[in-house]
Amino acid sequence: MECDGETLLVVGSVAYDSVRTPAGSRTDALGGSAMYFSLASSRFAPVAVVAVVGEDFRDEDAELMRSRGVDLAGLERRPGRTFRWSGVYDAEDSNTRETLDTQLNVFADFRPDLAPAHSGAGYLFLANIQPGLQLRVLEQMRARPRLVALDSMNFWIEGSRDDLARVIGRSDIVIVDESEVRQFAGEANLVAAAEAVLALGPRAVVIKRGEHGSLTYLKGETGAASAFACPALPLRRVVDPTGAGDSFAGGLMGYLAATGARADSLGAGDLRRAVAVGTVMGSITVQGFSAENLAAASAADIRQRFDLLLDLVRIERPRSGNGLPIRRRA
Amino acid sequence: MECDGETLLVVGSVAYDSVRTPAGSRTDALGGSAMYFSLASSRFAPVAVVAVVGEDFRDEDAELMRSRGVDLAGLERRPGRTFRWSGVYDAEDSNTRETLDTQLNVFADFRPDLAPAHSGAGYLFLANIQPGLQLRVLEQMRARPRLVALDSMNFWIEGSRDDLARVIGRSDIVIVDESEVRQFAGEANLVAAAEAVLALGPRAVVIKRGEHGSLTYLKGETGAASAFACPALPLRRVVDPTGAGDSFAGGLMGYLAATGARADSLGAGDLRRAVAVGTVMGSITVQGFSAENLAAASAADIRQRFDLLLDLVRIERPRSGNGLPIRRRA
Repeated sequence: MECDGETLLVVGSVAYDSVRTPAGSRTDALGGSAMYFSLASSRFAPVAVVAVVGEDFRDEDAELMRSRGVDLAGLERRPGRTFRWSGVYDAEDSNTRETLDTQLNVFADFRPDLAPAHSGAGYLFLANIQPGLQLRVLEQMRARPRLVALDSMNFWIEGSRDDLARVIGRSDIVIVDESEVRQFAGEANLVAAAEAVLALGPRAVVIKRGEHGSLTYLKGETGAASAFACPALPLRRVVDPTGAGDSFAGGLMGYLAATGARADSLGAGDLRRAVAVGTVMGSITVQGFSAENLAAASAADIRQRFDLLLDLVRIERPRSGNGLPIRRRA
Repeated sequence: MECDGETLLVVGSVAYDSVRTPAGSRTDALGGSAMYFSLASSRFAPVAVVAVVGEDFRDEDAELMRSRGVDLAGLERRPGRTFRWSGVYDAEDSNTRETLDTQLNVFADFRPDLAPAHSGAGYLFLANIQPGLQLRVLEQMRARPRLVALDSMNFWIEGSRDDLARVIGRSDIVIVDESEVRQFAGEANLVAAAEAVLALGPRAVVIKRGEHGSLTYLKGETGAASAFACPALPLRRVVDPTGAGDSFAGGLMGYLAATGARADSLGAGDLRRAVAVGTVMGSITVQGFSAENLAAASAADIRQRFDLLLDLVRIERPRSGNGLPIRRRA
């Protein structure tokens, strides 16, 4: 497939995850940032993946992704084993997880080389890989994409700080975990931490807060940033939080690609709706193991959750034109 | 003052707090649930306090509350010292605090006896006191108030569970911390915990989540509950989190009293606006020590924060009538 400007390209990981949660466990289940991102975003836009897997990668897993419209021409298969991660989630707090084991395997030598078919993509998502590799991908693009987004960076804040600051400066939207943005900015206060990221150049920063939703800052034309807080959907049952953040980013970027958004004219209304769509896709992912629920979700389920989210945050001004009934002091 | 149906009566504590936060410290500063609640709610409705203080209670503190329109006829002065609390807030996480010392002093023998002037109040807020005393207050009311709300209960979940369930069953709105509702319901899942509280009888439960805002469930006419998530205002500077929850409850109940709300016809629109007003008042309190910022806040500051909050959560449907641009599967 030749990528045109409508296409959303994601560079990241495809992995096998083994998880244990209060709801059960899975061994060697399909995982990885690019996998979750592409299954979520392909509901809205044409998506192509650049990633690497080992000889053990199962045909059925590639088939699942292809059946959801994901272009896998950039999924390189190399000698060795696929990236593996295993972890356990806390019973009381699904925001907390413990990594038991990480085996980079073929991902350790991942050097993304974009095929000519991919270097013309209009939308680019740089998932959580080494910032030097994210820069390498950016440099391979034939033209500046309409919109470049960058995902969080846990491993790279200490070791690759300069490269990370550089790739943030060349991105339009930075999507990052709450604890990571605090660490990166050296600021416990979230408002100040968001400003420190925006000062590097991007138009917007989207701070992910797990079950507490997200906080987004978008720079306006005057330079001042406006804030948007979006809660997570309250869920009666969370099965497996793995992939929530990547599915969130996928819904967000998929919606922006589908609506033809551009960095230079990115509006608050579009970005807020995109964050809401990301929130919906994250909520779908966590209600199944691996990508089981995400792959199975119907258009009706997506629409229903979007409506629920809009109702969840809806608040109307007081009916009286005078606004709040504040008393005068005696 | 003879309380009419417009008046909001609060029964709780008036205290002296000593706190240390990353922003500084205060010793024996005015505190207590009824103090914060009354200063926040008196911006919107006539408020009367029922509480007890010791001989050491400073005239200037009573004068401050009176100057803000708070009726202190029910503030009993008894031999002994005023309730004292001291604590330290974590530098990284303002949701976490450590209590250094609690001296109940005259509050240990607090037995609220409503004066005839107070027993006709239309709105009643039972702040965090022993559930048996909350029941005693309810029984002293001449008629069922239009609206009864109950605040959180940290100390009482273990020891006074039956009384607590009873007073919840006789309240219209339960306002409770996230960790407390989980403990009370024996449910880590917040949706299930909220339902467990609603099953005891109240129309609504408002779950406070500190810097993450609040989650409200309101039972509709069909019995099904609708959810409302309200973020906290992102603040560049938090000075002292003490009293945030009581100021939140004060803004919430003050707004409902000012708009003439009634339990039997409590609407989602009014309750959502009330939660937003509570959120605003909490945000004002935490930007100063004790009630310094709350007492000083102008009507313009309150209105401006309310507008900021409405903008913070605003999200509009996609412009196209078709809703989300979901792709058909190949």
